Amino acid sequence: MRPCSSTIRSPAVPDAPGDDASDWGLLEPLAFGSGSCALTGDDAVLAALIAVEAALTGAWADAGLAPAWLEEIASSLSGARVDRDALRRGARAGGNPVIPLVAALRDYTDRERPGAGDWIHRGATSQDILDSALMLVASRAIVVVADRLDNLGARLADLADEHRGSLMPGRTLTQHAAPITFGAKVAGWLDGVESAIAALGRIEPPVQLAGSVGIGSSFVDLTGSPDAPAALRAGLAARLGLADPGRSWQAERSPVTRLASALATALGALGRIAADLLVLARTEVAEVAEGGAGSSSAMPQKRNPATAVLIVAAAGRSPGLLSTLFSAMASADERAAGEWHSEWQALRQLLALAVEASEASAALFAGLVVDADRMRANVDLTAGLIYSEEVFSRLTRDRGRAEATAMVASAIDGPTPFAEAVPMELSTATTLVAAATVVDAALARRAARLRKRDAS
Amino acid sequence: MRPCSSTIRSPAVPDAPGDDASDWGLLEPLAFGSGSCALTGDDAVLAALIAVEAALTGAWADAGLAPAWLEEIASSLSGARVDRDALRRGARAGGNPVIPLVAALRDYTDRERPGAGDWIHRGATSQDILDSALMLVASRAIVVVADRLDNLGARLADLADEHRGSLMPGRTLTQHAAPITFGAKVAGWLDGVESAIAALGRIEPPVQLAGSVGIGSSFVDLTGSPDAPAALRAGLAARLGLADPGRSWQAERSPVTRLASALATALGALGRIAADLLVLARTEVAEVAEGGAGSSSAMPQKRNPATAVLIVAAAGRSPGLLSTLFSAMASADERAAGEWHSEWQALRQLLALAVEASEASAALFAGLVVDADRMRANVDLTAGLIYSEEVFSRLTRDRGRAEATAMVASAIDGPTPFAEAVPMELSTATTLVAAATVVDAALARRAARLRKRDAS
Amino acid sequence: MRPCSSTIRSPAVPDAPGDDASDWGLLEPLAFGSGSCALTGDDAVLAALIAVEAALTGAWADAGLAPAWLEEIASSLSGARVDRDALRRGARAGGNPVIPLVAALRDYTDRERPGAGDWIHRGATSQDILDSALMLVASRAIVVVADRLDNLGARLADLADEHRGSLMPGRTLTQHAAPITFGAKVAGWLDGVESAIAALGRIEPPVQLAGSVGIGSSFVDLTGSPDAPAALRAGLAARLGLADPGRSWQAERSPVTRLASALATALGALGRIAADLLVLARTEVAEVAEGGAGSSSAMPQKRNPATAVLIVAAAGRSPGLLSTLFSAMASADERAAGEWHSEWQALRQLLALAVEASEASAALFAGLVVDADRMRANVDLTAGLIYSEEVFSRLTRDRGRAEATAMVASAIDGPTPFAEAVPMELSTATTLVAAATVVDAALARRAARLRKRDAS
Amino acid sequence: MRPCSSTIRSPAVPDAPGDDASDWGLLEPLAFGSGSCALTGDDAVLAALIAVEAALTGAWADAGLAPAWLEEIASSLSGARVDRDALRRGARAGGNPVIPLVAALRDYTDRERPGAGDWIHRGATSQDILDSALMLVASRAIVVVADRLDNLGARLADLADEHRGSLMPGRTLTQHAAPITFGAKVAGWLDGVESAIAALGRIEPPVQLAGSVGIGSSFVDLTGSPDAPAALRAGLAARLGLADPGRSWQAERSPVTRLASALATALGALGRIAADLLVLARTEVAEVAEGGAGSSSAMPQKRNPATAVLIVAAAGRSPGLLSTLFSAMASADERAAGEWHSEWQALRQLLALAVEASEASAALFAGLVVDADRMRANVDLTAGLIYSEEVFSRLTRDRGRAEATAMVASAIDGPTPFAEAVPMELSTATTLVAAATVVDAALARRAARLRKRDAS
Repeated sequence: MRPCSSTIRSPAVPDAPGDDASDWGLLEPLAFGSGSCALTGDDAVLAALIAVEAALTGAWADAGLAPAWLEEIASSLSGARVDRDALRRGARAGGNPVIPLVAALRDYTDRERPGAGDWIHRGATSQDILDSALMLVASRAIVVVADRLDNLGARLADLADEHRGSLMPGRTLTQHAAPITFGAKVAGWLDGVESAIAALGRIEPPVQLAGSVGIGSSFVDLTGSPDAPAALRAGLAARLGLADPGRSWQAERSPVTRLASALATALGALGRIAADLLVLARTEVAEVAEGGAGSSSAMPQKRNPATAVLIVAAAGRSPGLLSTLFSAMASADERAAGEWHSEWQALRQLLALAVEASEASAALFAGLVVDADRMRANVDLTAGLIYSEEVFSRLTRDRGRAEATAMVASAIDGPTPFAEAVPMELSTATTLVAAATVVDAALARRAARLRKRDAS
Repeated sequence: MRPCSSTIRSPAVPDAPGDDASDWGLLEPLAFGSGSCALTGDDAVLAALIAVEAALTGAWADAGLAPAWLEEIASSLSGARVDRDALRRGARAGGNPVIPLVAALRDYTDRERPGAGDWIHRGATSQDILDSALMLVASRAIVVVADRLDNLGARLADLADEHRGSLMPGRTLTQHAAPITFGAKVAGWLDGVESAIAALGRIEPPVQLAGSVGIGSSFVDLTGSPDAPAALRAGLAARLGLADPGRSWQAERSPVTRLASALATALGALGRIAADLLVLARTEVAEVAEGGAGSSSAMPQKRNPATAVLIVAAAGRSPGLLSTLFSAMASADERAAGEWHSEWQALRQLLALAVEASEASAALFAGLVVDADRMRANVDLTAGLIYSEEVFSRLTRDRGRAEATAMVASAIDGPTPFAEAVPMELSTATTLVAAATVVDAALARRAARLRKRDAS
Repeated sequence: MRPCSSTIRSPAVPDAPGDDASDWGLLEPLAFGSGSCALTGDDAVLAALIAVEAALTGAWADAGLAPAWLEEIASSLSGARVDRDALRRGARAGGNPVIPLVAALRDYTDRERPGAGDWIHRGATSQDILDSALMLVASRAIVVVADRLDNLGARLADLADEHRGSLMPGRTLTQHAAPITFGAKVAGWLDGVESAIAALGRIEPPVQLAGSVGIGSSFVDLTGSPDAPAALRAGLAARLGLADPGRSWQAERSPVTRLASALATALGALGRIAADLLVLARTEVAEVAEGGAGSSSAMPQKRNPATAVLIVAAAGRSPGLLSTLFSAMASADERAAGEWHSEWQALRQLLALAVEASEASAALFAGLVVDADRMRANVDLTAGLIYSEEVFSRLTRDRGRAEATAMVASAIDGPTPFAEAVPMELSTATTLVAAATVVDAALARRAARLRKRDAS
Repeated sequence: MRPCSSTIRSPAVPDAPGDDASDWGLLEPLAFGSGSCALTGDDAVLAALIAVEAALTGAWADAGLAPAWLEEIASSLSGARVDRDALRRGARAGGNPVIPLVAALRDYTDRERPGAGDWIHRGATSQDILDSALMLVASRAIVVVADRLDNLGARLADLADEHRGSLMPGRTLTQHAAPITFGAKVAGWLDGVESAIAALGRIEPPVQLAGSVGIGSSFVDLTGSPDAPAALRAGLAARLGLADPGRSWQAERSPVTRLASALATALGALGRIAADLLVLARTEVAEVAEGGAGSSSAMPQKRNPATAVLIVAAAGRSPGLLSTLFSAMASADERAAGEWHSEWQALRQLLALAVEASEASAALFAGLVVDADRMRANVDLTAGLIYSEEVFSRLTRDRGRAEATAMVASAIDGPTPFAEAVPMELSTATTLVAAATVVDAALARRAARLRKRDAS
């Protein structure tokens, strides 16, 4: 993967060379070092567009529908140089960047071998190329995201195991409710990460190839063969390592929304973990801290949980983008008049956010400082009241609900400290055993998934 | 399932005068006759809440953790009568409707058998009950939706087959592009419906049972057994016919967002079909019409495609609701302080919209009038220009791209009608064969799914 | 205004048993007692629809375009009885509830006086009536919301004044940053409430009246007068107390989105206050508590901040609804094919949520318990570090930034307690004066608005 | 303002130098030539950040709180060169790009004059700078957008006037309903543009300056003066040409959501016009065409309405971004832990989309081809049925509703052509007069606004 930003340029303002860059990451702190630019940036999309055109050209040769020398041309396409501004100008005029790209690639290949340009983009429509290219970008990005989530899952599994005995307050609706362990909380985070891994694992990004109106008629006309559309689509899929969907999805966008839902699920899981950590990092709670926490521009003593904050921000941008993509489903005609075009940036941004948030979450946990002593101390903040559910449950078991209710109420309201007012020892035994069960189950589910994965 | 209608009253709410109805369907035209009220209305949710409490009570008995007579009490709960206003008042005070419901059910059971109330809601927290109840409502609703989609799929399959020879203009970006058949268009609609069926088929709504802080400690305290949480959860699932997720999802909301994504996928597929139909129904296009189309309050001659319009409207409300549910993922603590509460109506409304839109789509297609002659006539609107891609493709095949480009451009721009200016007969043969392949593939995919379903 | 309650029945819907209620508030805890049902429920919308038809009928008479006896008919319309199920059935068939309502009202008036039905809905289209009715509902609801916000503002102003000396930690990115006062925090809440009041104050809900295609041609045909459309629209506005927009907005929906943005602003302001309160109410922070806080179904000791939680939930549903309404702007034609229909529930729900959240916020503050001693104690949690910005600023002023940085860093990192390690007394004086300035300014802005309002 | 894209670089893929550009416009066709990059791109934001720091530095001098030589330093800041990668690295570590920027600017100024760096960012917090900078960017962008909308309005006004006699079908719910004129339709578009101009005109982007916790205490400490916060804020506003809000809005985000609502209103108005045009441009309707319409990569004869399509796409992305910004209102504490950070890109993208869509709309109308003959011919498509409302209205006026209903129904259903079956001449007179009234009113509203603007 090519790093975005290897060579440092750009004395920022006056005569910057990178003039066509509308977004180089200034407002996207998590992008830096995350690989999102290399995976999903415009250069990556452009490379994917060229790769799709090259694969299509190669697929013609693979299917025996084109001369043998075409294979070489197909391979050379990745070396083609195209002018960014020409692409942008052509996209503005024609409605998408594939139109000018095809012209540039034909020029390039005709120069390589006269007539070769005839085989570029042969039978395809712009949407075939752009849809396939974005799925190619997606297929690479979700592998990275899933891999990072899996590594994060490994870290969470270890953390859950390590802290199976670290008692802490369970909090509901912001209030201390009953004790849990930090291990059990981490196991819940792991559940979210595993759900996201599963969601991403169900995605098999498909190619798109069906010509101007989705039935592949141009391929039939160009070859005289009714089998050509399916053969070329299968060949394209094979060359790109994408799935062959067996159909066109130019106007049936569930492949996009499924992918988007999986990405939003990943962002949701990571955002929730970060939101949870932010509570634990509050000055008054202080049960966790970010290792290399962010400095403040104004307050020298402050150590901000900057990475968790930025993950929450990334997750907060996901639902709006997801809604844009679902709104785009409702298009008419064989190809849409605007809905499709509204997908591109929304999908790319969701991909980038998932790449960024997964990297940031890994970094966050790599440096996370857990203060188990403070957790234990916080359990005792309410002088035993946090055990009232346990007391109530055990009294209910032994004496019935009415008596239990009365005894607990009297202990809570009475002058004696709660711990002394109740007719039993307050014990952490139940919490520990219940929480350990939760941890064990989460670890077992993960282990089972890994076994299944490794067996396949 | 109890119908929501003017004559049959809710057994659960015997003496409510019903005046507290904020929404009885005035602004929800598709609700009427769709079953959405009976499946997802407040009475249905209330019945589900009671069913969950009954099932939990029964699960205690099933697990051998409660006296044998409890079984009978559990069965009787569905006969309990609760006061709507008391529920509403209690929900306002406590934050959710389970709190007052439990009080009412305990009163009821204690009257049936003194002390029986002790076994109601035993060990559970409000969220356990409401989450499980909404999943119970969902499990019933998605069966109905999937069933309707399947019937719609059958109708679409027939229609695609019937119209495999019905030539019509393929339209892209609002313009005639190249010919297709109505059969191929319908096959594309079928793809969307099948995608939605598949998405719904992957959903197995789970129960939720984990007590106040998600680790089931109350069940351990109440029984002395570390196995009680899992046993009761499994028992609850078995009684309700829901999945046992093997864990708590009080704070890990991917089960909700997965369900919501599937519902939004269904609404997106139906919305897209309706949007496509609205284009075909335009006065100038006139290729389809709704059978019993809507009358106008002002224009006596008008036959509005009212059902398609309402389906588009239903689909248009889905992305916003979906975004609300994904936003709710990012909560902190063991149970959320607001995010969870924001899910209830959004999820219920998505369910209702899916029930309504699937019913309306079936009704729409039951009466759809297809005018194949008009489709064929529209193909000829541009005096042959719609065949220019075909001409271009065949010329490219035979003479190369440069010559093809020049010849087609000259034919388009020249004084002679296009059909006469090109050196070949304009033919529909390619379109018909390519479109038939699309239809066959779609029907084959559906048939394969049905075989697989019936075999399992 | 008629309350939605268990005893008072709707005059407009006399014999409906109410069993067709899909939503009577079970999942909407804040609705209870808030007036949202009476203001925005289906009965209120139905009453508004009838009121608009009555006003239009009256406007014909007012303009001298109808016989004098029509005035009496117009007045009697509010007594018409319409069957809920007939409305729902007719709305399903025709696409909106106005069509069957008009039929019912014509029947009613023809029975009152033969031929009178001719004057009902004369020249109008369904959208004229429904748009005007929803604006009528909105105009009543936003008066209530604005009034409640104003009362809340009064309470906040008092609270800010009262606590201008109540020192507390200022928190940023979850961490103690520098001291503020509770008064200053409340002043910031007041800013949000005042912004919302201003946003609502800019809304003047307009009537809609333009006939089938938005140019009022039916009114010209019915009267022979080109001035009739404007005259009737003005008359309708006058009778309903709504604004005359001077134009049709059937297809130009900015009146709806402006209203919706103002409602979302109000919900955002209230949601932010509630979110802030939830932090202050955390067990570890404990600076505020809800008075009659929510009980828990499982934990006897717990006092949940249930009202704040429900306000956060209400605010969390607003952005998705707002996005639905903005999406509906992009319709084609003289009247939309679905986009308009998707607005109804989204707009009504935003109105209801604003009514509910404003009532709940008032209730919350009426009972809010503020613990100024705990606030002061929390300031001292970090042993003086919270004053480090002040120390740094004063050292910078006196000795320059470099020396200040070094001294503060050394004091933070050194072995001596921070308060002793720095060469000055830690003082709250600056905080108090700066915070008081903030409070004074907020109170002055509010006072200026009130003066301006009372003067007009 | 420096154009984005002046020098052409970027041999696309392998060893591209522009490596840090995640987005240079490949997927944003409307950006090209629109000025969005120069107005809202990262370089523009960076320049704004530096401008805000410079203005703050200058404000210290203006207020007499700093040495006189500081004025010169402030002026020189715009010449500072900052390294993009250093900014990105620092933003990743600290949570926002202001932190590293301040370090770079201090280095720069200390080199210019030792000790000068002490005066950079003095008393401010990162959010002060970034909020003010984004408002500075916004203030420039909305001037451009409003100016373009005003020019578009002028064009629409002319077009409405020109086509006040161009009869065309009025369409509702996709069906011919009654005749209108193209002038009246354009007048309705003008209404939307004028609404957007008004919405933007109400926005006065404010500066933000309040220090770390929003009460300006650092400024008091640094100066010893309680008046310093207000004085510096006023000075900052004056230097930047932004409004002085008289308060901090670090945690009260209605200034952001107001701005965003106005931008979404503009995008909604433009998206609606484009959606309407797309219907008129349909092959079967053919009443308008884009002048230099988009070519197709597959179909040589096709002229796509590419600009309208891209405007619809831009408008389709707005509601999701708006929902993100409204969601961000609900933050806690004195400065938010993620919500604020989620605003940056959403706000910037809304600004860019508004800049782009307004430019594209102007371009579209500059080249729009209107076919008034085709409009007139389309009126006659239904053999007179489009006049049925008129006939019905006139019959109702003369003979009452019952007889009118019967006569029209019989004319519609009977064997005779409608035009002959009705007892009157079908006339366009009413349509023309009613439509002209609509046009006149719209032009008058616009003229009144312009007079008011020019008078002020």
